[in-house]
Amino acid sequence: MTTPTAQIGVTGLAVMGRNLARNFARHGHTVAIHNRTAAKTTALAEEFGHEGTFIPATTAAEFVAALERPRRLVIMVKAGGPTDAVIDEFAPLLEPGDMIIDGGNAHFADTRRREAALRPSGVHFVGAGISGGEEGALHGPSIMPGGSPESYESLGPLLEDIAAKADDGTPCCAHIGPDGAGHFVKMVHNGIEYADMQLIAEAYDLLRNVAGYEPAQIAETFHGWNKGRLDSYLIEITAEILAHKDAATGKPFVDVVADAAEQKGTGRWTVQTALDLGVPVSGIAEAVFARAVSGHGELRRSAAGLPGPHPSVLDPRDAARFADQVEQALYASKVISYTQGFHQIQAAGAEYGWDIDLGAVAALWRGGCIIRAAFLDDIRAAYAADPALPGLLADQRFATGVGEAQHAWRTVVASAARHGIAAPGFSASLAYYDALRAERLPAALTQGQRDYFGAHTYRRTDREGSFHTLWGGDRSEVEA
Amino acid sequence: MTTPTAQIGVTGLAVMGRNLARNFARHGHTVAIHNRTAAKTTALAEEFGHEGTFIPATTAAEFVAALERPRRLVIMVKAGGPTDAVIDEFAPLLEPGDMIIDGGNAHFADTRRREAALRPSGVHFVGAGISGGEEGALHGPSIMPGGSPESYESLGPLLEDIAAKADDGTPCCAHIGPDGAGHFVKMVHNGIEYADMQLIAEAYDLLRNVAGYEPAQIAETFHGWNKGRLDSYLIEITAEILAHKDAATGKPFVDVVADAAEQKGTGRWTVQTALDLGVPVSGIAEAVFARAVSGHGELRRSAAGLPGPHPSVLDPRDAARFADQVEQALYASKVISYTQGFHQIQAAGAEYGWDIDLGAVAALWRGGCIIRAAFLDDIRAAYAADPALPGLLADQRFATGVGEAQHAWRTVVASAARHGIAAPGFSASLAYYDALRAERLPAALTQGQRDYFGAHTYRRTDREGSFHTLWGGDRSEVEA
Repeated sequence: MTTPTAQIGVTGLAVMGRNLARNFARHGHTVAIHNRTAAKTTALAEEFGHEGTFIPATTAAEFVAALERPRRLVIMVKAGGPTDAVIDEFAPLLEPGDMIIDGGNAHFADTRRREAALRPSGVHFVGAGISGGEEGALHGPSIMPGGSPESYESLGPLLEDIAAKADDGTPCCAHIGPDGAGHFVKMVHNGIEYADMQLIAEAYDLLRNVAGYEPAQIAETFHGWNKGRLDSYLIEITAEILAHKDAATGKPFVDVVADAAEQKGTGRWTVQTALDLGVPVSGIAEAVFARAVSGHGELRRSAAGLPGPHPSVLDPRDAARFADQVEQALYASKVISYTQGFHQIQAAGAEYGWDIDLGAVAALWRGGCIIRAAFLDDIRAAYAADPALPGLLADQRFATGVGEAQHAWRTVVASAARHGIAAPGFSASLAYYDALRAERLPAALTQGQRDYFGAHTYRRTDREGSFHTLWGGDRSEVEA
Repeated sequence: MTTPTAQIGVTGLAVMGRNLARNFARHGHTVAIHNRTAAKTTALAEEFGHEGTFIPATTAAEFVAALERPRRLVIMVKAGGPTDAVIDEFAPLLEPGDMIIDGGNAHFADTRRREAALRPSGVHFVGAGISGGEEGALHGPSIMPGGSPESYESLGPLLEDIAAKADDGTPCCAHIGPDGAGHFVKMVHNGIEYADMQLIAEAYDLLRNVAGYEPAQIAETFHGWNKGRLDSYLIEITAEILAHKDAATGKPFVDVVADAAEQKGTGRWTVQTALDLGVPVSGIAEAVFARAVSGHGELRRSAAGLPGPHPSVLDPRDAARFADQVEQALYASKVISYTQGFHQIQAAGAEYGWDIDLGAVAALWRGGCIIRAAFLDDIRAAYAADPALPGLLADQRFATGVGEAQHAWRTVVASAARHGIAAPGFSASLAYYDALRAERLPAALTQGQRDYFGAHTYRRTDREGSFHTLWGGDRSEVEA
């Protein structure tokens, strides 16, 4: 029998699993590796054996036997059925105190189900969101583990070892909360990523079609923005992409790429879950919808030629001023997306009893993941100052930043409408801002309509209780 | 044993069930009635026995025995568990060819599950969406039955009897399609209703805070609009509500109603389902989110006082012109909501093999339900002319109507932004319109970003295949 010497095991050696295993090994941990088809296990050991200590295992029993106790077993397989199958295979081989860590993109509801199913056996099920793609997995991802606090005591140090480090040196990994909390936070990370990408796309579109800039010039603009408060991975790579020329045609790369965006599902999940929680996430929803619109080719072709404003671009001096306004609109809209995303995490925390430290979430997104941004330091600081902050706009720094940007933001939204350029993310974010700060909302009329056609009753501004007006009768008011 | 003489039975005699039973009886049908607690059954027979022939049944067996074959059994109980319980109670008492009709607001996925579960027994399960509330149930609802064509042959004539009639005399009831098709279409009806209500709320808000109109003047404006292309039940009742004065205070009614809108779930389901189908329904989503925002009191209080434009209203001459522009924006945005809703039904039809006649759906919404509008005749005509229309904007009448409105629509969206009034529905609809008609969307940049950080590949505009740029390497392009 094998002497158990591995601190961690990884089963499922597609690119993400392989890179995670290598990352653990490079940090000096002995890593048991296993895959459904043994060829990948052998290949990994042969190709990267020089990076650290791997223990290739052919069978599940061998794999489990190689792990020190309590065993830490990372599964990196497809979400859904394949994940359940692997859990069913390994759980019977484990003992109380052992840990199964699901590092895939599971839906948090599945993670809750699996955690509850394993709990009686004493095996800890840890749903760990891992962001950063293949490169992150290898060089340092952002890691969002859920599950029990006990499991994090044993597992945390290893995960923090391989996680990205923020500029201040702290690992981009922290215990998020029980059961599905980790996968939930990872899902919202992805939702915010969708919104970030959509807002950048709108900024690009406006600079191109309202300011009249060419891609190379827009690349310069983004490069400049990346030195300021918008400093982030996505702004950085946008500048790179826009500066890139297609070798085959000599055209700007962005002009040869088909304009139909695809998606894998976590953005959609974020919006669907927010709807269940009653949290408005309009910025994220518009990003998901914008990708959907782009992919509906037949619908788009049928709408080509519909009337719009005559295309026109600003003259160069006005264009430079407009570009600055777009930066302000992008900043303000981004604050709104994060406001909505953190609201969603806060609401889920309350719903599921997760007690999530929102500042810690912001802190661990500073490195390794896709949305990493200088900006997140301000969010961390805001929640550090007041962990129960009702929303980011209640923080003075954000209130001031958005307040100073709001005039430009309005100009940009109005310009988009007038020029016929779709800016759903900018518009939705501004509408959310204006709705939040409104003294009175027309929701009062909505309640009146609901009472009229469905006797759904309404509350009054001046006294307690539920009321109904006898609309079909003498229109007197009765207490319901 | 009772001689079976009832053409239809209704179990579940809360207000909706009671009114439906009375409606059947008033149309000359003998109606078996049953309720979990017998008191309601007796009360209905006693109070409304003069309206027609009721056969009160105390037990399930008695109820079933009272029904002519094939039996038609309408269940009007709460969605979810209670519906399953009633099905489980009655199904064993039925025979092949009998029908269970669920007239509640079930989720279409539940209806699909129930239909599939009953099918082997030969009992037809019919999920029938019923719109129009209590009054509709009594005087003529809009009815959207799913289920097998055979069941509709037997059931259709009875339902058409009690349904509302459109102005041209046709019943607002038609077979929608198999299994969950009826409940699906009813759900989208409700989603469109949310959007209609939100757009009306925004129009009101802009007339109030940009045009500077008082509620009574806005009531007049809506009253006028109701004589034109916006003629609809919701515009009509909006005029009534805005003209209504609160007796207790003498203030406009709309000013004493708390501005926190509630919701019951079908709007949310519509958006969640659209996300699964990949259909952009931004107008409906913004309506759901607007209600959610309005209800987040603490968040709103924390945002009160955030910077916005100085409040100002137009001078009276400009105000009248602006009111006309709002009518155009409302019309155009409404076309978009319906475009999105019908797209969702079309996509679901394709996904589930329902083969839904979209023109027939529009036709049966012309009476009885909440969104009944003159407008729906144009939609019926559009799909009659081309059942495979890719979207409403591909119809000449709608393209022209929206095309003529687009300039005013842009002005209204820009004015909302500049005045600090939230108009998420108008803005989202305009952005959708501009995205659809765009020759190039910035989704190309989105695909470039996805390829950069996740190697998700992209397609090219100039040749087939999937491609990846080696962003971390020499930036050459490889075929994926």
